[in-house]
Amino acid sequence: MNRVINDPEKVVEDMVRGIVAAHPEMALDSANPRVIGVATKKPEGSVGLVTGGGSGHEPAFLGYVGPGLLDAVAVGEIFSSPTAKSFLDAFKAADRGAGVACLYGNYAGDNMNVKMAVKMAAAQGIAVKTVVANDDVASAPKTEREKRRGVAGEIVMWKCGGARAALGGSLDEVIATAQKAIDATRSVGIGLSACTIPAAGKANFHIADGEMEVGIGHHGEHGVQVTKTVSSRDMAKMMLDIILPDFPLAKGDEVSVLVSGLGATPLMEQYIFYADVAEQLEAAGAVVAFRFVGNLFTSLEMNGITLTLTRLDDELKACLAHPCSSIGLKVLA
Amino acid sequence: MNRVINDPEKVVEDMVRGIVAAHPEMALDSANPRVIGVATKKPEGSVGLVTGGGSGHEPAFLGYVGPGLLDAVAVGEIFSSPTAKSFLDAFKAADRGAGVACLYGNYAGDNMNVKMAVKMAAAQGIAVKTVVANDDVASAPKTEREKRRGVAGEIVMWKCGGARAALGGSLDEVIATAQKAIDATRSVGIGLSACTIPAAGKANFHIADGEMEVGIGHHGEHGVQVTKTVSSRDMAKMMLDIILPDFPLAKGDEVSVLVSGLGATPLMEQYIFYADVAEQLEAAGAVVAFRFVGNLFTSLEMNGITLTLTRLDDELKACLAHPCSSIGLKVLA
Repeated sequence: MNRVINDPEKVVEDMVRGIVAAHPEMALDSANPRVIGVATKKPEGSVGLVTGGGSGHEPAFLGYVGPGLLDAVAVGEIFSSPTAKSFLDAFKAADRGAGVACLYGNYAGDNMNVKMAVKMAAAQGIAVKTVVANDDVASAPKTEREKRRGVAGEIVMWKCGGARAALGGSLDEVIATAQKAIDATRSVGIGLSACTIPAAGKANFHIADGEMEVGIGHHGEHGVQVTKTVSSRDMAKMMLDIILPDFPLAKGDEVSVLVSGLGATPLMEQYIFYADVAEQLEAAGAVVAFRFVGNLFTSLEMNGITLTLTRLDDELKACLAHPCSSIGLKVLA
Repeated sequence: MNRVINDPEKVVEDMVRGIVAAHPEMALDSANPRVIGVATKKPEGSVGLVTGGGSGHEPAFLGYVGPGLLDAVAVGEIFSSPTAKSFLDAFKAADRGAGVACLYGNYAGDNMNVKMAVKMAAAQGIAVKTVVANDDVASAPKTEREKRRGVAGEIVMWKCGGARAALGGSLDEVIATAQKAIDATRSVGIGLSACTIPAAGKANFHIADGEMEVGIGHHGEHGVQVTKTVSSRDMAKMMLDIILPDFPLAKGDEVSVLVSGLGATPLMEQYIFYADVAEQLEAAGAVVAFRFVGNLFTSLEMNGITLTLTRLDDELKACLAHPCSSIGLKVLA
């Protein structure tokens, strides 16, 4: 795998340098080079929003900092949780006196470090409440939802929580909206090729040409099955067959559909897949009210596609329509 | 190469279906399924903007339709020019009585079909004027600029022409601004892996692991040299060493920097590369006033990176800052 990097051990450092250079509206924390936030603080007294996670999923996580979205992001090494200290520093950067909502994904390292950081923040007088995303249906059965990973559904959680904060919601209100958003969200992914951590130099998992892994995680975590590759239409059907039994849709239910490429998937293919998903959802009686297509939550140069569905109510629709601006997502007023 | 497609012969048709399904603000021409335009016409009496080109470069070309940008796009098969009929139908869709600016890239097929379409349009009373992008420095020497290909610099041309049209410019004024924008723009690309047209099933060019092709075109056209891979920093230097002799920058010159991944290049690497380019430009005394980083002009799943520089004056700065909305580019008011 040829790459556009300098030192394989410093890809995160070099990326952060590029992000800040390319986006003057974003700024590195003066004390911690693994925390990125908004350069201009939002209004005093509004709730701060924080997330964090391993690098390699760009534009997640740091690409969702901006007006109507997150305030600060703790940046981990590739596919590794940020430190507790970085989460704490992100809380400090995001706090404007109204407390901080930490909206993050369900991974062991992140859970541990966020918990430690929340305690450290409390000792410093900063109130932090959390929502843990667990939208990845294929990662554990319905009866063990607390074991499921957080994946691209986190974007919906950030978008809705961010809108609620921008609309003046209290910490409890922002947490309630973010929790509602992720509770109404399910995701599943199909992997078509593996990816390689630059410093490791070779992939720690493998997908053969002509095969695909259904339900794969963003770091090669095993899914529900390995099969021969099928058409986009059949991928859409397999993915809906995994999501819908877990998350039945009634006729007329309004949904948001988020399709993300995993890194190397051409945008052309993402739109082909979107058309197949929308057609099958509409045939099932659902109404697609919001659509997001693109490389929104990736895994380096992995090939594959993910599908995220959210069942909407009036509050979530208003939150998704609320303006926001960031690298990964812009919604115009 | 595993893919998310249905019929390899129908990828363009299926993609267009997805684009229109995912973006209600875009619409297929009722008479020609290879023309995409804005669903809601812009104000009567404003100049229409059209481009067209082969598919496989998404979000180019159809992803730059929208307010402040293009009105209609003629869609070709993968890496093939749209037909003259499609260009003509795009002109008709874009015309609002003030004429049409066709801003496209310098390829033999596109040149031929645009010329035919302009004649057909004239016979139907539609005035069309053209600007041909030729920003790819490595594709011909400076003395034969008319032979150079159009690449990602077309985005700058569309953005500036689109802003001028939105600001009420006449056809001659829109053409003058678009021509000025592309005259002030130079691009060069480095390829790190090839791509495969789905219907062909295998690549028509090859880049070995550990090697890169400097100055490569978007369809595998040969560049200036094949070398061993180098660091991002050295890629930036090699690319600036190609652009700057052609396009000298004086100390204090303001520039726009556009970095695009070619399809499979992780966003992380695009930002690493951006940081290296910005650092070297600033060391040379240039002032980076606008920056665009992302998969903005691609070649299916090709790995690699392109760099586009534009020397700015007050008019071009105002045009780049003007609001626009599209799949590929959103600039907020």
